Amino acid sequence: MVDILHRVGIKTSAAEVYTALTTVDGLAGWWTTDTRGDGSSLGRVLQFRFGAGGFDMKVVELTPDKHVLWKVVDGPEEWIGTQVAWDLDQVDDYTIVRFNHKGWKEPVEFMHHCSTKWAVFLLSLKSLFETGKGAPDPHDVKIDNWN
Amino acid sequence: MVDILHRVGIKTSAAEVYTALTTVDGLAGWWTTDTRGDGSSLGRVLQFRFGAGGFDMKVVELTPDKHVLWKVVDGPEEWIGTQVAWDLDQVDDYTIVRFNHKGWKEPVEFMHHCSTKWAVFLLSLKSLFETGKGAPDPHDVKIDNWN
Repeated sequence: MVDILHRVGIKTSAAEVYTALTTVDGLAGWWTTDTRGDGSSLGRVLQFRFGAGGFDMKVVELTPDKHVLWKVVDGPEEWIGTQVAWDLDQVDDYTIVRFNHKGWKEPVEFMHHCSTKWAVFLLSLKSLFETGKGAPDPHDVKIDNWN
Repeated sequence: MVDILHRVGIKTSAAEVYTALTTVDGLAGWWTTDTRGDGSSLGRVLQFRFGAGGFDMKVVELTPDKHVLWKVVDGPEEWIGTQVAWDLDQVDDYTIVRFNHKGWKEPVEFMHHCSTKWAVFLLSLKSLFETGKGAPDPHDVKIDNWN
């Protein structure tokens, strides 16, 4: 089992970041404009759609302003059953976001791609608060021939 | 043992990317302007310096236009003994760069930070070729309170 790990610091409150991770409008502001479902209740499903496909995430843990955990219930085969964890801490002027996409069976080439792409979207989340504008799909930074 | 994985595609030749990974001028164009040493001969050491410290990397494998492997011989405790591997492949208009910083003992918070920061520098490497300008330290994108 291998994980994708990231860390960013965002100059806003943990409550604001938590909202951006648990509401459709928030998520659409930094990950993909085509976000549907419900991210604010346990057991509900969020649907993230991109040009090439998408992911369905079940909300399995929520601690307001602190922690969010999603389980991937539909999407690319390599993603199904993996989990995406978000941990928030206020440190000085920053909300520190620790990110962990865990439970990959193998470190396949697609996992390399997803790791870099998650960094791009975490910087989009940071930008949403620090400049007022994120870069969700389809306005995201393209990183390679897989986009 | 846990790894940091990334993948970018760069619209240039593998020979150009290999040069940017094995020469002081190339490395100074995307990672840190304060790069010294020799990256083009086995057994030699590259010294990368940043405001807060730096890393010494011994060149342990070189396959022209294909593969570079460094071993960290000095730097932060968590980095010492880890290895940084670069694998290049030409696919259509892109040189695909697969990156692996391997051999971390534990997935410490600093590893989360370094994973995101490597993505930033890989995009700097991409930018160096695609726009003519990288963003090496001290001009790099700052990601959190650790910089």
